[in-house]
Formats: sequence, C-alpha cells, structure tokens
Amino acid sequence: MKKQYLLTPGPTPIPPEVALKEALPILHHRTSEFAAVYKDVAEGLKYVFQTKNEVYMVAGSGTAAMEMAVVNALSPQDEIIVASCGNFGDRWAKIAQSYGVKVISASVAWGNAVKPAEIEKALKENPNVKAVYTTFTETSTGVVNDIKAIGEIVVKTNAVLVVDAVSGLGGQEFRTDDWKVDIAVSGSQKGLMLAPGLSFITLSDKAWKAVENSKIPKFYFDIKKYKKSYATSETPFTPPVTLIVALQESIKLIKERGLENLWNDYKLLAKAARAGMKALGLELFGETPCEVVTSAKVPEEIGGKIVKTLREKYGVSIAGGQGDLKGKIIRFAHMGYIGKADLLVGFACLEMVLTELGVKIEKGKGVAAAEEALLNG
Amino acid sequence: MKKQYLLTPGPTPIPPEVALKEALPILHHRTSEFAAVYKDVAEGLKYVFQTKNEVYMVAGSGTAAMEMAVVNALSPQDEIIVASCGNFGDRWAKIAQSYGVKVISASVAWGNAVKPAEIEKALKENPNVKAVYTTFTETSTGVVNDIKAIGEIVVKTNAVLVVDAVSGLGGQEFRTDDWKVDIAVSGSQKGLMLAPGLSFITLSDKAWKAVENSKIPKFYFDIKKYKKSYATSETPFTPPVTLIVALQESIKLIKERGLENLWNDYKLLAKAARAGMKALGLELFGETPCEVVTSAKVPEEIGGKIVKTLREKYGVSIAGGQGDLKGKIIRFAHMGYIGKADLLVGFACLEMVLTELGVKIEKGKGVAAAEEALLNG
Repeated sequence: MKKQYLLTPGPTPIPPEVALKEALPILHHRTSEFAAVYKDVAEGLKYVFQTKNEVYMVAGSGTAAMEMAVVNALSPQDEIIVASCGNFGDRWAKIAQSYGVKVISASVAWGNAVKPAEIEKALKENPNVKAVYTTFTETSTGVVNDIKAIGEIVVKTNAVLVVDAVSGLGGQEFRTDDWKVDIAVSGSQKGLMLAPGLSFITLSDKAWKAVENSKIPKFYFDIKKYKKSYATSETPFTPPVTLIVALQESIKLIKERGLENLWNDYKLLAKAARAGMKALGLELFGETPCEVVTSAKVPEEIGGKIVKTLREKYGVSIAGGQGDLKGKIIRFAHMGYIGKADLLVGFACLEMVLTELGVKIEKGKGVAAAEEALLNG
Repeated sequence: MKKQYLLTPGPTPIPPEVALKEALPILHHRTSEFAAVYKDVAEGLKYVFQTKNEVYMVAGSGTAAMEMAVVNALSPQDEIIVASCGNFGDRWAKIAQSYGVKVISASVAWGNAVKPAEIEKALKENPNVKAVYTTFTETSTGVVNDIKAIGEIVVKTNAVLVVDAVSGLGGQEFRTDDWKVDIAVSGSQKGLMLAPGLSFITLSDKAWKAVENSKIPKFYFDIKKYKKSYATSETPFTPPVTLIVALQESIKLIKERGLENLWNDYKLLAKAARAGMKALGLELFGETPCEVVTSAKVPEEIGGKIVKTLREKYGVSIAGGQGDLKGKIIRFAHMGYIGKADLLVGFACLEMVLTELGVKIEKGKGVAAAEEALLNG
C-alpha cells in the first residue's frame, strides 16, 4: 500500500505502457519477429543519439558500455586524458587504469564543469594521447559539460572523444555527430524511461580506426562482435529481450513528443526545481547546472536524514550526495517520465521533511516558486 | 493474433505471475525495499545452485558470467583444460584464448559426452593446470556431462573446476557443493523461467584462492566488487532491477514445487520427448541425452525448413542445430515453464510439418508415444 514516488536520476519512473511490454510473452531472439523489433529500436536509437552511425545494444549496466568504450579503443600503456568533474567521470580513470592505460588528468573539483581550455592544453602537451574521456551530465553533482566546445578541440587532433551520456541522453540537448563525439555511451534507466540492464554504444569512423589498433583483450565486450551481429539484427549473446521490446515502446513515446520538445520540457522542470530550491533557502550546487538533475546544498548534519525520511515517511525517493558529497547535497531528477506534478510532490514533501528536521522554512514557498516557474517558463 | 508456443532452450516461457512482476513500478536499487528483495533472491539462488556459498548477480548474458569465471580465476599464460562437447563448451576456450590463456583440450566430438578419464589423464600430464572448464548440459547438442565424476577427479588436484550450468540449472539434478564444483555460472532465461539479462556466478573457497592470484585485467567483471557489495545486499553497478524482482517470484515457484520434484518433472518430459522422436522415426542425437533438451537427427535437406515452418505456420518455436549441426538436428526444450501439454503441442505440429515437407510418418504416432510415456513414466 505504500505509494512510491521516484525522483531519482536512475532508475527513473517507467511509463505503464512501457512497463507492461516487459510482461508480454517473451520472444525468441533469433526470429523474424524479434529482428523487426531490433531494427526499429536500432533506428530509434540513432534518432535519440542524433547520429547516423549504428548504435549497439549490450546486456549490462551503463558501466558495461563505458568499459566497452575503453577496451575497444585503447591498448595497454596508451595515454589518455580524463576530464572528470564527479563520480562518474572518475570511473573513466578507474576503468582505464584497470587495463594499464596511463591517465593524464584534466579533471576539476566536484561541482565544477570541466574546462575545454585545459583539455586543449593537455592535448598540446601530450601529443601521443589516444583519447579524451569525459562526461556529458555528471549525475553525481548535477553539472553539465560543454561537449560541443570539447568536440571542436578534440576533432583537430588524432585523439578520439569519448563521452558518457548515460544520464543526459534524451534529457538534455546532445548531438553525437554535430558535436563531433567519437564514442558515446548510454544506459536504459535514465532518459529512455526503461528498467536498467541494457546499455548502448555508438562509434564514429575515427573511433573505428582506434578499434583496429586496440590491443586490450576482450570477449563479451568486443565491439566487433556487436557490429557483425548488427548486420543481421541480432546481438552476439542472448539479449535482454523484454527490455528491448519495452524500449521500442519507449522510443515510440520519445518520437511522438519529439526530442527537442522533450529537451524543452526538462529545461522547464530544471528551472522550476532551481527556483524551488532557492525559495527554500537551499543554495544550488554546481557551476553549470544540467537540465536532468538539480543539486542543492543542505545542512550537513541532516543531509542523509532528508533522503531517508522522504523515502520512509512519504515514499518519495530522491538522491543524496556520493563520495565526498555524501550528506552535503540532495538531488532531484527531472528527466524521462517525471512530470510537473511529480516535481511539486517532491517539493511539498521536502518542505514537510525540512520542517520535521527543524529547518526553519516557510511551508509552501518552495512549491509556489516551482509553480511560478512552471507557469511562466 | 498469432499465438506463440515457445519450446526453445532459452529463452524459455515465463510464467505470467513472474512476467507481471517485471511490469511493476520500478524500485530504486539503493533502498531497504530492494535490499529485502535482493536478500531473499540471494538465499533462493543458494538453494537453486545447491551451495552454501554466496551467489552473485551480474547484469549481462550467460556469457558475461562465463567471462567472469575466466578473468577472475586466471592470469595470462596460465594453462587450463577445456573439456568441451559442443558450442558452449567451445566458448570457454574462445574466452580464455582472448586473454592469452593456454588451452589444453580434453574435448570430444559434438554429440559425445566429455570423458572424465581424459580429464584425469590431461591433469596428470599437465601438473601446472590452473583450472578445468566444462559444461553441465550442453544445449547445442542436448548432451549432459558427468560433473560429479569430474568433480571427484579435479578435487584431488590444485586445479579448480569451473562449470557452465547456464542451461541445466533448475532443470536437472545439479549440486554445486556436493559435486565439488568450484565455480558454477548460470543465466536467467532457462530453468529460472525469467527474461534474459541477468547471470549468476558462485565460487568455492578454493576458487577464491585462485581469484587472489589472478592477473587478468578487469573492472565490470571484477568479482571482488560483487562480493563487497553483496555484504550490503547491493550490486557494484546498477542492477537489472525488474529482472531481480521477477526472479524473486520465480524462485518462490521453484521452492513451492521443490527442486527435486522439478528435476523429476523434466526427467519425465525428457522421456516423453525421446519416445515421441523415436516413434516418428527420428534418431536421437547425443551420447548421454540431458533432461532439459532433446535433440534428434532430421533429414539434412529439410532441417532448417522444419524449424522455420513450425514457427511461421504454427507459432511453435523450437531450436535447430548450431555450427556443424546446422540443419542436421532439431531440439525440443523441456525445462522451466514448459509442461506436458506444451510438449504434445510440439509433437502434434511437428507431425504436420514433417508431413507437409514430404517425410512419410504416421500422424499421431509421435504424440501417442509421448502420451504413453507421460502416463506411465
């Protein structure tokens, strides 16, 4: 009976018409019926990624696709630049170092955005760099990076640009081809409004050249196997059939609304979320706030309690901070199947919880500010 | 409107009460609600694997768990024995070779069962062997291997025994601990009656010692990360939440029926399937037929057509041969949520298709023989 309200940046809520597809009798994956679904989804993913290149589906978490972007593009002892601004950016370095890759840091403090000029400088100083790894929207801090500017820099070099678009894809303007992103990866449980377990990767021609030179050993993550199977609308290993069937419905919803309209919808939600936080006296966190998740600072002694109380007392799931930010920030997601009313639920319950935890706020003020932004844009 | 009947060895049909769980509003994976599900499933998996050790859940196909059993137990240049008798056994060698591991073959022709005496001989001749990799039920041929006998041999050496139980687990007697299996892997879409996308791995104390010595690089597949997260009922990366929630229901059904009763159910179905094939004049394939899938030889010129016609005309999905067996055998699965009536549907439609393809058979004879076996055991 406990009603749940999900305002977390992954998993995000799943539209019922998508969720029900997961419950349909399962298709066998080597049939014309499944191939038809696969083809439709594969085309839809090109639209969502804004690319003309093939997008491959991999059974695994978003980190699986990130690892594919490392093991297929590099060799041990290669030098790469990692431009991180948070937990997920740092993961690029950890994966690469696991495979003996040398990491040159162009990272910034959590909460800041990566500096394109720093990447440019690092590329000049290290002409052998094979790739630049960075993050589009860094979920752990709520910061968005200027991928377009970074793309303009990296395209002039021999390095490939690899972007983690796990949390931002479908939620905020992202253009793989136009922004000169060579490898983009994403996952199912964010803007694509699906259960977790399916991840995605797409590669430019320049990235495929890097694949040819890659000497890191791999089998399950070998991108060439996925490319080969793609030609017959298959996957090299048994795919998560129900997730792919549900994804077809999800992509249908995205196409119906239109990607640019969706981006605008979430931009408006982001404005409302920021207005609500400020009205409650909570300082926004992050140099360049993204449009899929809003982070705000909270008094450290009650940070963890806010998240816990919201969930346990009101069924509202939001996210807290990760790593050094644990207990210091709260995060409201506004992407995928999260709407205006959901955001207002979040603020109303947050107001109750802050009051219960002894924070002096004016009840209704956060909700009012969010309403104002939603009404007036 | 086209009704589908699934008699394939993975994915297998999903019970509606399990499938509907996939459609429930998604839980966040870092909550007490999900942790409760995780704990229950983790205990249930110990029962299904017949082990006292922890069983880890990994987002990925069965091959993902196989790769974990390679990259966590070995170092490059290590020597292993691969005892293969089919397509999935061969995969052990391919994965290991991808990581620079030296493979000593104790394999047999497809259709035969691996010879424990050959493994014993290979272990004596190669005292540095770190592990023996083999298959429980080899889905590609329908053969079962004597894991218990192999366990008795390997336990006397320093090598660990690694078994692919992807297709057999839950369908035929398999006892990880009693049979001295050091690493067992499986997947969600066979005997566990679930959609694909989730795989499993369990390790003995002896296997954990091998893990400590392993030097193959890994990140997503690093078993130590899974062990660490297991302690707090979590996974290191976002898990396939809906599959795990559905698995709880699946395991409930398995517990209600009882594992040994289930094994007997499928044993009876296997008897009926073999009787049906023989009655239709189709020679059984495989030296030691397993109890989860039955293979029979078919005239080579119509092999592919049987599978295609069954599916396209009657909605009945069965499997054909793989690799060199393509077009030469057909395979009926009888595991998971496949019941007596499903098997009879398969034989009835097979009789029609064989007739249509010009094979002289007596209509009803395969069904009758299967019925006879189902009635009299």
